[in-house]
Amino acid sequence: MTDYATIFKDMGQRARQAANDLQAASTDVKNNLLLSIADILETNIEVILAANKKDMAQADSYNLPAIMLDRLRLTEERIQQMALGVRQLVELADPIGEIMESSTRPNGMKITKVRVPLGVIAMFYEARPNVTVDAAALSLKTGNAVILRGGKEAFHSNQCLVDLIRQALIKVQLPADAVQLVTITDRAAVSDLLRQRDYIDVVIPRGGAGLIKRIIEESRIPVIETGSGVVHVYVDKDCDANKIVPIVINAKVQRPSVCNSAETLLIHEAVANTYLPVISKALFENHVELRGDEASQKIVPAIHLAESSAWATEYNDLIMNVKVVSSVEAAINHINQYGTKHSECIITENKEAAQLFLQQVDASTVYVNVSTRFTDGFEFGLGAEIGISTQKLHARGPMGLLALTSYKYYVTGDGQIRS
Amino acid sequence: MTDYATIFKDMGQRARQAANDLQAASTDVKNNLLLSIADILETNIEVILAANKKDMAQADSYNLPAIMLDRLRLTEERIQQMALGVRQLVELADPIGEIMESSTRPNGMKITKVRVPLGVIAMFYEARPNVTVDAAALSLKTGNAVILRGGKEAFHSNQCLVDLIRQALIKVQLPADAVQLVTITDRAAVSDLLRQRDYIDVVIPRGGAGLIKRIIEESRIPVIETGSGVVHVYVDKDCDANKIVPIVINAKVQRPSVCNSAETLLIHEAVANTYLPVISKALFENHVELRGDEASQKIVPAIHLAESSAWATEYNDLIMNVKVVSSVEAAINHINQYGTKHSECIITENKEAAQLFLQQVDASTVYVNVSTRFTDGFEFGLGAEIGISTQKLHARGPMGLLALTSYKYYVTGDGQIRS
Repeated sequence: MTDYATIFKDMGQRARQAANDLQAASTDVKNNLLLSIADILETNIEVILAANKKDMAQADSYNLPAIMLDRLRLTEERIQQMALGVRQLVELADPIGEIMESSTRPNGMKITKVRVPLGVIAMFYEARPNVTVDAAALSLKTGNAVILRGGKEAFHSNQCLVDLIRQALIKVQLPADAVQLVTITDRAAVSDLLRQRDYIDVVIPRGGAGLIKRIIEESRIPVIETGSGVVHVYVDKDCDANKIVPIVINAKVQRPSVCNSAETLLIHEAVANTYLPVISKALFENHVELRGDEASQKIVPAIHLAESSAWATEYNDLIMNVKVVSSVEAAINHINQYGTKHSECIITENKEAAQLFLQQVDASTVYVNVSTRFTDGFEFGLGAEIGISTQKLHARGPMGLLALTSYKYYVTGDGQIRS
Repeated sequence: MTDYATIFKDMGQRARQAANDLQAASTDVKNNLLLSIADILETNIEVILAANKKDMAQADSYNLPAIMLDRLRLTEERIQQMALGVRQLVELADPIGEIMESSTRPNGMKITKVRVPLGVIAMFYEARPNVTVDAAALSLKTGNAVILRGGKEAFHSNQCLVDLIRQALIKVQLPADAVQLVTITDRAAVSDLLRQRDYIDVVIPRGGAGLIKRIIEESRIPVIETGSGVVHVYVDKDCDANKIVPIVINAKVQRPSVCNSAETLLIHEAVANTYLPVISKALFENHVELRGDEASQKIVPAIHLAESSAWATEYNDLIMNVKVVSSVEAAINHINQYGTKHSECIITENKEAAQLFLQQVDASTVYVNVSTRFTDGFEFGLGAEIGISTQKLHARGPMGLLALTSYKYYVTGDGQIRS
């Protein structure tokens, strides 16, 4: 039996040591590092493509669906995009060292709250090699060391990318161990990694519901839950008819594979007869399959009857649930029961209904007359995105650089003691 | 076999429902509730004392040490103190509803970041009935529902206190289920409670290292780790001699049973011969037993030789480790290896040493020439204390009311869609 715990403890110790060095790095040093990473990616496109080719050749044996194959594939343009993404981080303000608060207490001691890196981050993700570069760059920008665990499908690509990033670290005289890749592909090993609480400060999974669930189950390290989105659009009785179809189509169709796209349409019974046929027609024209309750089927017979599991399902596909509800309160109750606390929308001109919806719906981002597709770090103006948190601790909704920071109190004085 | 999962799911659902009602409660309503709780405690002192008497009568069978017995015991004065603590919360600003940030994006949609309650909190603690009132009051002030799980030793006291708090909730027309007590004392049941991720947003343990460790191991709900403190005071070579004894004595002796008291003294080798005898003498006079390395024993023979486990031990007692170190860097390394990221102090007049220590020591609160005993919500001016977080996510160091809040984005517009 391989002793994974020892291997991961060693990785963790090296990451912790690197994090100690990195936290003191100046903004200039960190930005030089990012430029150096962008350069090395751009000058090694052929090397990266060759590694990716190995992964693509093996992909058949993993039976990857077409969408996953597309995510795995690198091209010259995609590598240039990765490098560009790293360069763009240079422009963002460095949050580390920021004085968040400062006060002098009656006894004369001064308390200063200073923003610091989290320390060591472990990122878990699936078959997208671009996440390797993105996760490393975001971690380094914020002075954190990172342990990366990508999908086995992207093994060669990830190893190549991490090698290049480590070369860049060495070039600017920072510890290479600030970025480490887990090369053990044995799934059982993950659980040992997730127990290195002494050396890893936070675990961030980026991927499907299965990955996230497994990590929550096994981790003894704090986890930031991201991603999973059973998102609703509720058409209220007092809505502006002109806004319905554009918002519903955008929320469902524009990019159905992502977490902020809608899965369920709720419609008030008072307007269902009038609007549901129009919305359904637009959705059908966009090749969306509809699964609904009996009331919606009665209005639009082409709607299939939904199974009870449908309401909690994240399709990430051109399928949408439809349900007729009796009130805004009923819509809110449905959402709070089946939603994943991600993004929820009401289409209404009624201020009271909007206010009730905003306040009572338990989700990171609640929309009034705006498509749910905007739940995104860049769309929110954060300049970066680590992921979308669906939990309430530490960070909620789109996470920018600040989500990778913590704080620390400096207390200075001249001999104060407590009485 | 009792089906604990079903019982806890039911509790969780009722807590979630209560939390939904409570989050919309106005500041006035919440403050009236707190006053009502204080009143009901004060008018039921005899009832509470009678319940506590039952616990005290049973305490022998649990073999409680004297310090625990003292914590379990209620008196008229202590109950009045509890009520006073609740009244003081009324004075604190209500953080809920605060607009934390607001911006209008180029497409015209408005993003507002609003402070909201966490939702449902589960608090685990030991044989201190006052925590029941404190935890409930802090949760209610911040619009959260709370599930309380106190020690079995305080069973009758806790049940009586929770009954009174629920009466107060009903009196002000808020849901009684906003405060629920777990009356199942079977330890195995805890694990089922810690899996109610759909209904509980955060778990906060308040107690000894054993309790906290068990909860981290078993919880599938995010945990805020609190409390455990292996705290160091480092005497640097460039220190002001007049500050050493007051700070060391205060940090070790003033209240040894609490987490921010010191466990280990580190002293620079260049000043150990001069100062260690003086510090030791003061500690011995205060009945502190010293356990040290060979170097310290050589200077002060009355120091016992420490076992290797000593450096990681939180004594919470009149025992202190002593170690001679060769530099501030060696002190920092020792602290980062054995500390619990709680509170750490350097005594120095050297600005560079102070700066290095502040930056490199990985702890919630780092002190220069100030006793570690100040790591406390009230001493920090927060007006309340939920506990002291020793993790880096969400909240670090002394936690005030804000630690019991999250945020949510409201996005409003007039039909914006993503292109």
